[in-house]
Amino acid sequence: MVPRYARPAMTAIWSAEERYRIWFEIEAHATQKLGELGVVPESGAKALWDWWATNPAIDVPAIDAIEAVTKHDVIAFLDWVAQQVGPDARFMHQGMTSSDVLDTTLAVQLARASDLLLTDLDELLAALKRRAEEHKYTPTIGRSHGIHAEPTTFGVKLAQAYAEFARCRQRLVAARAEIATCAISGAVGTFANIDPSVEEYVAEKLGLASEPVSTQVIPRDRHAMYFATLAVIASSIERLAIEIRHLQRTEVLEAEEYFSPGQKGSSAMPHKRNPILTENLTGQARMIRSYALPAMENVALWHERDISHSSVERFIGPDATITLDFALARLTGVVDKLLIYPERMQKNLDRMGGLVHSQRVLLALTQAGLTRDDSYRLVQRNAMKVWESDGALSLLELLKADPEVSAALSAEELEDKFNLDYHFKQVDHIFDRVFG
Amino acid sequence: MVPRYARPAMTAIWSAEERYRIWFEIEAHATQKLGELGVVPESGAKALWDWWATNPAIDVPAIDAIEAVTKHDVIAFLDWVAQQVGPDARFMHQGMTSSDVLDTTLAVQLARASDLLLTDLDELLAALKRRAEEHKYTPTIGRSHGIHAEPTTFGVKLAQAYAEFARCRQRLVAARAEIATCAISGAVGTFANIDPSVEEYVAEKLGLASEPVSTQVIPRDRHAMYFATLAVIASSIERLAIEIRHLQRTEVLEAEEYFSPGQKGSSAMPHKRNPILTENLTGQARMIRSYALPAMENVALWHERDISHSSVERFIGPDATITLDFALARLTGVVDKLLIYPERMQKNLDRMGGLVHSQRVLLALTQAGLTRDDSYRLVQRNAMKVWESDGALSLLELLKADPEVSAALSAEELEDKFNLDYHFKQVDHIFDRVFG
Amino acid sequence: MVPRYARPAMTAIWSAEERYRIWFEIEAHATQKLGELGVVPESGAKALWDWWATNPAIDVPAIDAIEAVTKHDVIAFLDWVAQQVGPDARFMHQGMTSSDVLDTTLAVQLARASDLLLTDLDELLAALKRRAEEHKYTPTIGRSHGIHAEPTTFGVKLAQAYAEFARCRQRLVAARAEIATCAISGAVGTFANIDPSVEEYVAEKLGLASEPVSTQVIPRDRHAMYFATLAVIASSIERLAIEIRHLQRTEVLEAEEYFSPGQKGSSAMPHKRNPILTENLTGQARMIRSYALPAMENVALWHERDISHSSVERFIGPDATITLDFALARLTGVVDKLLIYPERMQKNLDRMGGLVHSQRVLLALTQAGLTRDDSYRLVQRNAMKVWESDGALSLLELLKADPEVSAALSAEELEDKFNLDYHFKQVDHIFDRVFG
Amino acid sequence: MVPRYARPAMTAIWSAEERYRIWFEIEAHATQKLGELGVVPESGAKALWDWWATNPAIDVPAIDAIEAVTKHDVIAFLDWVAQQVGPDARFMHQGMTSSDVLDTTLAVQLARASDLLLTDLDELLAALKRRAEEHKYTPTIGRSHGIHAEPTTFGVKLAQAYAEFARCRQRLVAARAEIATCAISGAVGTFANIDPSVEEYVAEKLGLASEPVSTQVIPRDRHAMYFATLAVIASSIERLAIEIRHLQRTEVLEAEEYFSPGQKGSSAMPHKRNPILTENLTGQARMIRSYALPAMENVALWHERDISHSSVERFIGPDATITLDFALARLTGVVDKLLIYPERMQKNLDRMGGLVHSQRVLLALTQAGLTRDDSYRLVQRNAMKVWESDGALSLLELLKADPEVSAALSAEELEDKFNLDYHFKQVDHIFDRVFG
Repeated sequence: MVPRYARPAMTAIWSAEERYRIWFEIEAHATQKLGELGVVPESGAKALWDWWATNPAIDVPAIDAIEAVTKHDVIAFLDWVAQQVGPDARFMHQGMTSSDVLDTTLAVQLARASDLLLTDLDELLAALKRRAEEHKYTPTIGRSHGIHAEPTTFGVKLAQAYAEFARCRQRLVAARAEIATCAISGAVGTFANIDPSVEEYVAEKLGLASEPVSTQVIPRDRHAMYFATLAVIASSIERLAIEIRHLQRTEVLEAEEYFSPGQKGSSAMPHKRNPILTENLTGQARMIRSYALPAMENVALWHERDISHSSVERFIGPDATITLDFALARLTGVVDKLLIYPERMQKNLDRMGGLVHSQRVLLALTQAGLTRDDSYRLVQRNAMKVWESDGALSLLELLKADPEVSAALSAEELEDKFNLDYHFKQVDHIFDRVFG
Repeated sequence: MVPRYARPAMTAIWSAEERYRIWFEIEAHATQKLGELGVVPESGAKALWDWWATNPAIDVPAIDAIEAVTKHDVIAFLDWVAQQVGPDARFMHQGMTSSDVLDTTLAVQLARASDLLLTDLDELLAALKRRAEEHKYTPTIGRSHGIHAEPTTFGVKLAQAYAEFARCRQRLVAARAEIATCAISGAVGTFANIDPSVEEYVAEKLGLASEPVSTQVIPRDRHAMYFATLAVIASSIERLAIEIRHLQRTEVLEAEEYFSPGQKGSSAMPHKRNPILTENLTGQARMIRSYALPAMENVALWHERDISHSSVERFIGPDATITLDFALARLTGVVDKLLIYPERMQKNLDRMGGLVHSQRVLLALTQAGLTRDDSYRLVQRNAMKVWESDGALSLLELLKADPEVSAALSAEELEDKFNLDYHFKQVDHIFDRVFG
Repeated sequence: MVPRYARPAMTAIWSAEERYRIWFEIEAHATQKLGELGVVPESGAKALWDWWATNPAIDVPAIDAIEAVTKHDVIAFLDWVAQQVGPDARFMHQGMTSSDVLDTTLAVQLARASDLLLTDLDELLAALKRRAEEHKYTPTIGRSHGIHAEPTTFGVKLAQAYAEFARCRQRLVAARAEIATCAISGAVGTFANIDPSVEEYVAEKLGLASEPVSTQVIPRDRHAMYFATLAVIASSIERLAIEIRHLQRTEVLEAEEYFSPGQKGSSAMPHKRNPILTENLTGQARMIRSYALPAMENVALWHERDISHSSVERFIGPDATITLDFALARLTGVVDKLLIYPERMQKNLDRMGGLVHSQRVLLALTQAGLTRDDSYRLVQRNAMKVWESDGALSLLELLKADPEVSAALSAEELEDKFNLDYHFKQVDHIFDRVFG
Repeated sequence: MVPRYARPAMTAIWSAEERYRIWFEIEAHATQKLGELGVVPESGAKALWDWWATNPAIDVPAIDAIEAVTKHDVIAFLDWVAQQVGPDARFMHQGMTSSDVLDTTLAVQLARASDLLLTDLDELLAALKRRAEEHKYTPTIGRSHGIHAEPTTFGVKLAQAYAEFARCRQRLVAARAEIATCAISGAVGTFANIDPSVEEYVAEKLGLASEPVSTQVIPRDRHAMYFATLAVIASSIERLAIEIRHLQRTEVLEAEEYFSPGQKGSSAMPHKRNPILTENLTGQARMIRSYALPAMENVALWHERDISHSSVERFIGPDATITLDFALARLTGVVDKLLIYPERMQKNLDRMGGLVHSQRVLLALTQAGLTRDDSYRLVQRNAMKVWESDGALSLLELLKADPEVSAALSAEELEDKFNLDYHFKQVDHIFDRVFG
């Protein structure tokens, strides 16, 4: 976790204090159910919840001090709680293993992290939708291979991004469901010393599903799928970030990351406004993507469990979610305030002197009765002149002035072929599909 | 694709001939709809389908020869079809781009590949279920960190694998839906030259969904998610493969990959039966996992499209699906015929002289009124003797012979603590959860 | 391996026939030395080499047919050789294991592959050097963040690429040394049944080093380092490919992949020349990079050896080297014939109306005695006019016409600040550093 | 960076304070040389060094406060230094860019980190050598595929690890040279505003090489190679960690991570000593390996530079080096204090009842004149009895008692074939190769 790429709400989920709070809730709920089952006295849970109702501060250094002696984090915590609550606390953790607490806690943390990420995605989607509608009919050149192809609209570009992040949202909902499971099954997961109804009770209280079969640990294919999903979301962030970086290039300049009116560019060079936010996002996307790999390598634990996954998760649990939360919020900010330059888009559209319309003319000549070869020859000889003039000449004007062309197509007919609206007639249909 | 790790049905999906068959279907369906729309004569589609009804062979070398001239694969194919069908073929491909054909074809190939993989998973699940039920109550030691922990059953081990692959199946169903989309939207995806109803018609005919907004290409976040899902499935294969490799170790030998009764082991060493199938699966899992990365890097295409994804997909499209198909089938075979040795499991369970039951005795002594410290001391002094004897002594016998212990617990009570069934009382519940 | 991304010389290294040829050489050299040591009769090697001198064809199907029975590739090969050579062939393979043959063969294949790759790099370096010298002083705008920054020369750009690939060459030389080792150490590598001098002899004959300590297999950290090195080379290919893709963008168009004068662009659009070769290279780079991962996962074999590395290497051995060979050759072709447009570079340099020189003017005003604030204000007010004119106005002309500026700097002095040569004075020094 | 996996010396390299110290040194050295060149007054460097000689504390919060205003880290630092040093500080940074400082600082940090890692490796190598010599002739079973194969010694196992980490050391020396370069070349790297001799001077002072051609930034192929090398080292750590995890398995128990004599295992189960350090190392290895990927994706910066590499390096610079430093030290501790159980090794060697020697008997029978088939039959019928007895019977005794066998080989001759020393005759030679 790099502090400058971290936001407080997500970071809090991974704090020691929050972790201990979740531990307490798991232990207290389990003790409650054990009490109902008659395994322990009902006074156990009561004592715990009474203390909790006082909204006690979690004394992390005190717990750390106990752990320094016991060399066991969960036992240290239980000891500290016992010190606070008194003898009734001894009924906690009956029949449970540390993994029951640790794995269920990770589930709670990842579920809460997912909720923040879903909100992030909602905000990004809202920003994309707003800007897409704003520029629904702003003409811009569509590019394949970085080369001008056919016209499209800036709104369609953003609608594509919206559809992509809507898919990301759906995937995250599925990934959240993957990891939101509770395991309280005791050593090697047989429930030998704890009734399955405890797991079911705690799961319900925490908003989790019961893990159908755990082996002391929750199986790590769930986490692999989760981090793989974050990696795919990161790749979509990279795509939009790179689109904006392209648009901000000096020669293109169809959009720019926001800078305030008074903000100075680099000393005396007013053009030196760098797309540093989206470049930064590109790097963050690389990191989030890379975390999917160790998560996948974590799946093949030995037998009922080994603990090799743990060190990996201490890194990627916080790092992936905190960085993705930051990245989504940063991207939302970029989209929200993106400076969009329709005039420049039009200028770029026009810089080929109308060559982007040549195919429509070609077709029209064919339909007017010329052979395909003749049609091609006529268009080509005018197109080459435009091309060689670097856009100074206009294809439309040359075609009008070409007697062979004008014999087949009137000026009006020709002009019609240069009408951008032709390309936009399905934009509404596309928007219907995307925004419903 | 490595031929020895390939099965015919999956390989056929990626053959040149099959690809051309899909191309034809896309073109013919589109021409059909264009005819209904009145864009082209209805005779176009009729001619195509009439020819197709003759079940014509696809002459791949002939198409290659044309491509050598035209330098364009789709045009070469269209030319060849035109040679076969005659002049009516000229109505094909109106308003379409090559990407419409290529991307939709990839969707069809991946969807069909997914169907094979789903069948593979069904067969694996069936094998796991059968073996799990067969060994539902076969006692075996559960291991954490590779160290004996508490008893479990071999059936529970397999139930865990079943639950994991059932999740893989669910994920693959979702991943299949991700990539099963059809895009026929023309240059830069605006539908300027082709009506969206053509896309919808072709999609329906091919069992695909319409891509809500394409940009000449289908967005690659779909494929990234797809290959990431295959990578997670591969990781689960690796887990089960490694479990079996562990069980087959000379010192463990609780299970073995099948070898026929008459089959010779390595020359004169009858123990030299190597788990080469599961080792092989481990390596294949590494490969399938690695393909997720370039798939994710493919997402950030430039603007409306670039073609950098294409070379990646020529590798990973076939390699990931063919290898996963092979690996799943190989794993099914391994599970199906796995030699399982309950006697050895019992022997391993017993090799600690009953130490795995020491915790239950400890608890019983406490419940019998001894202090926790005294209970611990009594168990520990007997347990250490067993441990130092390397399992030659029996904890149960030593405890019975220890006067302080026998003062608190009768022989019968002690024997009860060594009863394996105690650990298995929830096995039925676990099976209910997993197999429903 | 994708046939269209494969060249014959590299592909041949990985053919079955070539593999068998290397097997034979290893066996024959080993038999020779065993004869010298008196372990086997000297007639053994003589018979083998006599047969080999007849330049016999390798009958791959015949060997395959034997393997179908023996289920063991090395034994099948030895049987086939014995059929050809006669009884003296029985002295082959004494005290050796299959791994001795297989791992040493992989070393020979990777070493030969490296030699081809080194030649590829030499050709790429030669092309880069030639084009760098050709454009040593061709002015072009340097870009940071995709935004115009300061002038540089196209030759310096290519010199950078040259220096990068020269480093790649050095790394590949080191990586080749990593994998060029010979292991003939018998079961678990103890040399119990074969004298180490055999290994040393065979190593020398094959141009390999002796593996200091093998454990039946050559340790896989060597291969991990090798494939990681190829992955880094691929990343450098990606960098240059992306540079060219950027330069070919419609709005930039400072360079283009070669197309022949008569070659048609996309139908009627002469600007539609797509950088498909470099896009293709981008995808190939992603693949080659991805192969480093399973190679690294191969390192942790169990104990003295397991065979999980083998399936991985069947993929990445050929795939990584064949694809990299192809990619380097393709990149060399692109560089060699790259269409470079100095006029367009100049036009792009000028499109900011001289703003790229504003910093030098700022400094000159300060040195002429103005305060930094005043200097800034003067430059800024003219720069903003140029910027707002989208490059239609010239900064130099505006400054000359600005009385406050001209009071401090003469027209000549101002013109001097707009002299591109100022930026190029160290180009020769840079070339000296790079090309020596 | 996870604090529990971090050691102070390595962490200090990445502290804000240390970074600023390096910044200062670069700026001061550069000012010194600029003074010598007459570009700035010599008083500039003198003032800086005089202040530095007072060993001033770096006031990180003060610098942060300035950065909060200037939004530029290097400028904030220069401002703060100027506040401390006075007007002469204004001669700092003449003709330089921020990247000159930042990239050279990263080089210094990575070079220093490498020095710590090299020391770590030296300590690991020393521990491995000591334990290898201690157990040079400790017999142990060599295992292929996890199955008993032929005897080897525990010293040879460790010699292999030594040779592997010696290679890692060599690679790290090479990787250190890759990244230890200095770039002070100004905007887009042309040296237009700063003489190359400044770079050469600063490089020498900092123990770096001059970057032959930078483009404002040091090319990232260097860093990709560096982090790829760390990833390979991590993979070797994983290999040794997994070896130890295997050896500590309950059924194998040939070695254990150290625990102090008085240390309690898990409650009453004395066998419950888990290899948690090596499991932890396995997870750390996964993380370090994963950092190679974003480092490779960082290579393809756009044109002369973009800043996408920066966020990646904020993660992986500290995370990879700090975690690797920790992992190497942890592994050294594990090796150093590893509990090694030669008796158990012998017991495991013997558990097959001598089957591991069957091949030598087979060969001896053949050499004694029996046909290969007869020899095989004789060995096999005794071997099978041993195998079926699960090692209770002894192959040697059965062979002695088999009249057909004893007709061919005397008891003494048979015993000779069961002599472990036969397998160890080259151990000295192997040690000579590895330890020289």
